[in-house]
Order: sequence, then C-alpha cells, then structure tokens
Amino acid sequence: MNALKEGWFSELSTMWPGECFSLKVKQVLHEEKSKFQDILVFDSENYGRVLVLDGVIQQTERDECAYQEMMAHIPLAALKTDPKKVCVIGGGDGGVVREILKHPSVEEVHLCEIDEGVVNASKKFLPHMNMSFESPKLKLHIYDGAVFLKEHKNCFDVVIVDSSDPVGPASSLFGPEFYKSCKEALNENGILCTQAESMWLHLDIIAGMKDFIVDIFPNVSYSTISIPTYPSGAIGFFICSKDESNDVKVAKRTEWFESAKDTLQYYNPGLHASSFVLPLFASRRLGLKQ
Amino acid sequence: MNALKEGWFSELSTMWPGECFSLKVKQVLHEEKSKFQDILVFDSENYGRVLVLDGVIQQTERDECAYQEMMAHIPLAALKTDPKKVCVIGGGDGGVVREILKHPSVEEVHLCEIDEGVVNASKKFLPHMNMSFESPKLKLHIYDGAVFLKEHKNCFDVVIVDSSDPVGPASSLFGPEFYKSCKEALNENGILCTQAESMWLHLDIIAGMKDFIVDIFPNVSYSTISIPTYPSGAIGFFICSKDESNDVKVAKRTEWFESAKDTLQYYNPGLHASSFVLPLFASRRLGLKQ
Repeated sequence: MNALKEGWFSELSTMWPGECFSLKVKQVLHEEKSKFQDILVFDSENYGRVLVLDGVIQQTERDECAYQEMMAHIPLAALKTDPKKVCVIGGGDGGVVREILKHPSVEEVHLCEIDEGVVNASKKFLPHMNMSFESPKLKLHIYDGAVFLKEHKNCFDVVIVDSSDPVGPASSLFGPEFYKSCKEALNENGILCTQAESMWLHLDIIAGMKDFIVDIFPNVSYSTISIPTYPSGAIGFFICSKDESNDVKVAKRTEWFESAKDTLQYYNPGLHASSFVLPLFASRRLGLKQ
Repeated sequence: MNALKEGWFSELSTMWPGECFSLKVKQVLHEEKSKFQDILVFDSENYGRVLVLDGVIQQTERDECAYQEMMAHIPLAALKTDPKKVCVIGGGDGGVVREILKHPSVEEVHLCEIDEGVVNASKKFLPHMNMSFESPKLKLHIYDGAVFLKEHKNCFDVVIVDSSDPVGPASSLFGPEFYKSCKEALNENGILCTQAESMWLHLDIIAGMKDFIVDIFPNVSYSTISIPTYPSGAIGFFICSKDESNDVKVAKRTEWFESAKDTLQYYNPGLHASSFVLPLFASRRLGLKQ
C-alpha cells in the first residue's frame, strides 16, 4: 500500500508505467484478500472514502459521480424507448445500480458481480453507494458475468460492463467472445456500455477492441469523461447499439433528465453528446464517426 | 524533487493537498533558481521531456498538445475576423506561440514572459517548443505582463494568459485589475483566454474569478480540457470577448482548421464547442450560459 511513502496510498501499475497517483490516507477501514483479488477501503484526507481493487483505485467519494452517472445515463438516455430491464456486469460497489434506479421506468436491475467480497465491502463501508442493495428492483447474482450473459438471451434493454482493467479477474470481459454474449443478451434495440480504458494511456488496447467490436455491433461509438482519480484523469466507454439507426450521441426523452437532475452531480444531455467528441489523436486512431 | 521516492518527481502542493502525481525520472537536465522561481527540466521514463516551475509540472512532451492547442486555437478560431496581432502573457516555454504561428494571418506575436530563465531553459532543453523563438513574427519581451498590458491599448485581437498558478510569480494575473488591463489591451472585438485552474480542485477560486470577470467583460465562458499531467487531469480557461454578440463556443472560419489539421494533435472544431459543456456540479456553481 505504501509503495511510495508511509501514510499515502500509491497506485503503481504495469498498466501505466512511469507514473503514479497517490492519495493521503486518513484511516484504513478494510483490507481483505478475497478469492479473486485484494480489496482495500480507506478514508482519504481529501477524496472521502476510497475503494481499491488489486492496487487500483475504483471509486472515491469525491469524484465517483462522473463515472457512475455517465456509465449509467449515457446508455439509458440513448435508448429510444423507456428502459425496463438492465444488467450490470461487475460494479459490485453498487454505484452504477444507484444511478440506474434513478430511471423510474426500470423494473429490474440484474447485478452480476463475481466477487462477493466487493459487495460485502460496499455494504459495510461505502454508504454513498450501498443503498442500491436495499432496492426490491435489484437482483443480485454472485456469478461470473461472462457465463451469466451466455445464459440470458434477448432480454435486456441495456447491459453495462463496469469492470476493472484487463489484468486480473476482469480480463475475460475485454475479448470478442464476451462482446458477442453481450449482443445476444440484449433485446432487439438494446445498448451495451463498457468500461474502455483511457485514450491517453491505452489507445492501442482501445483501437484493438474497436476492430473486433465493429464486426459484432452495427453501431459503435466511444465516449470519454473527466475523472481525477483514474489514471490520466480520463476514462472511456464503448457505447454499442444493436439499432443501427439510433444516434446514441443524442440523449432521448429529456423529460427524464428534467425530473432527475436534482439528484445528479455530473451528467447532463449536453455532456452526453460532447463526451463523444474526441481529440484528433484519438479520433484519427479509432476512425469512428464523431 | 524526490518528495515521495528516490528516482521519481512528485508534485506535492498546498494547492492540491492530500494528493500527488509522480513521474519516474530518467535524467535531470537542468535545475536553476531563477530570480522568480525554481526551474527544473527532466527526461521522464514515459512522458518525454518535462518542464517544472516551483515544483509544479508545466508541460510534458506527451500531453502538452492538449493545453497549447486548446489555449491558442479556441480564442483564435472564436474570432469572427482573421487574427493579426496576438499577445501571450507568460508562456515562456514557447508552446502557445508555436500554435499561434499556425494561423498564417497572424503578423505579430508579442510574448511577454517575466522570467528569462524559462525562455532560456526552453531554448536549450525543449526542442518541441523552442522553434517559436526563431520566428520573425515573434516579439519577445522579458517583462512584467501586468505592466506590459497597461502600456498597450486597443491593439491585440487576442490576449492569452498562459500563467502558472496563483501562488508565486503569476499571482497578480488572477485579479480584477489585471483583467481590466487585458480588456483595454484588446481591440474592439478582441478575445481574452486565461489559464483558469481545474473545476475539480478549484471551483471556489474559479467562481470567485467569474464574479469579477463578468463585471469587466460582457461575454464570459469557461472551457475545460483533458490533460493527464495537470492536477485532476483537467484544466480550464476563461474565454472573454469584448463582442457581446460573438458566440465564442462556435469555431469560425473552419477553412483554417482544414488547412492546419495535419499539424494538430488535439484541437478540432467539435472539441472547441464541447469543451464549454460542463458537468452539472460546475455549471451550477458558475452559473454561466452553456
């Protein structure tokens, strides 16, 4: 934990060599070696409560709004019809589910998290996210997300893959096999949203993924957002629609936003659209329509 | 330099307590205590050459394109007419001037940098930026920017304030007196672009500045960009126009972009517009039209 200096958490990783973000620790609340990964929760001096998996910051109380809101509301607001049934793969902290439940049309959220340790740590230590677990709309599955999706066909309006990085328990969520399962689990006009790394650090990985995703989905876009405690201060999502004619960059049913906006910190329909506009170095490499 | 660990540069500051970004150092090239500040240039393992002033990263070779291109091209492309005379306050590394010179209509760039040490360090150690100093269009002034602007009235199409943070030699560039001088130095429809901190870290400072800037300029907007090696991975600009009717969010004369785009890595007209779309937490606080 104190790779750089006593009293600090330092996020060293081979995924971003030669750079390191550190947070000052106020108090360590939980340390566990689960069946799948190392789980750490601490109170930081300036970013509130922090969840760390295998040495990588997943969420801080101060900036998690950016990730959770954009990951949930971009695909949900991009749908032409009201979302009813949503699936989250990973996301055991409950943050994305919290956001999905802000859409009153949603009847069921299936959360499939492989590591019960993450769910339990959130229930105990992450009060800003764990209210999700009390919702009667939530169906919690402690199960392998790749297998879960194979067992569900044509049934979700939206699938959200809130995974950690491709090193560790989430590695199977970054290949073509998994994207095919996602497509099949979606209903006719369904939308997939996946965590897809940082354009600044992992453009090669992102471009490699794009190459196979465009063979699976007829409609693929890449969205990027600002989030201070992720490496490079940015993270992206692939937004893939089975409906070729749906312009996912446009937020639909804006009356939903008007009714929900007092509960939001980050997402808005303008940001929904602008998150798809990439810097030249990224749009050139990815070659996706902007 | 090695506040956290030997062999790393760590950016600790009271401006962002409790967090710290570190870069692995390959070789220190230059260390100097100038009349105004500590100047450090090093080769990093993964971000190329790095310029540091008073312990704060100013530019790295890998991501400086974001800052320099957006800081120069947003105000220049926002003008309704071709820019001819531009002034840069600070920016002694030459990066912003390099971008300004990509507009062939520009006849004169006045670079007013208080610290000759920065200019000399750039000339010697920052080859990706120092070509600016060879241009016959450049007029270099080693001088106090606040005084320089008071001595120039109604003469610039664009003034760009490429300053360090409000602690240190740039502190006078963050008050109303300075913004009044900027306004007077601009010609009738001129545009001011100033470095204006991170919405994630310094929203109070930004909101405080906005309060006095809207009393000085009739047309004020805030733009934010993604840049990994600045604290929080984001930095913003105030874009202030003397022309109330000019929608600065719209890039004009896009034929310029078409002719210049092969020399750009980051800026494009879509990103110009989308950089003004803020997350809810920031737009609520700043209360500026989006």
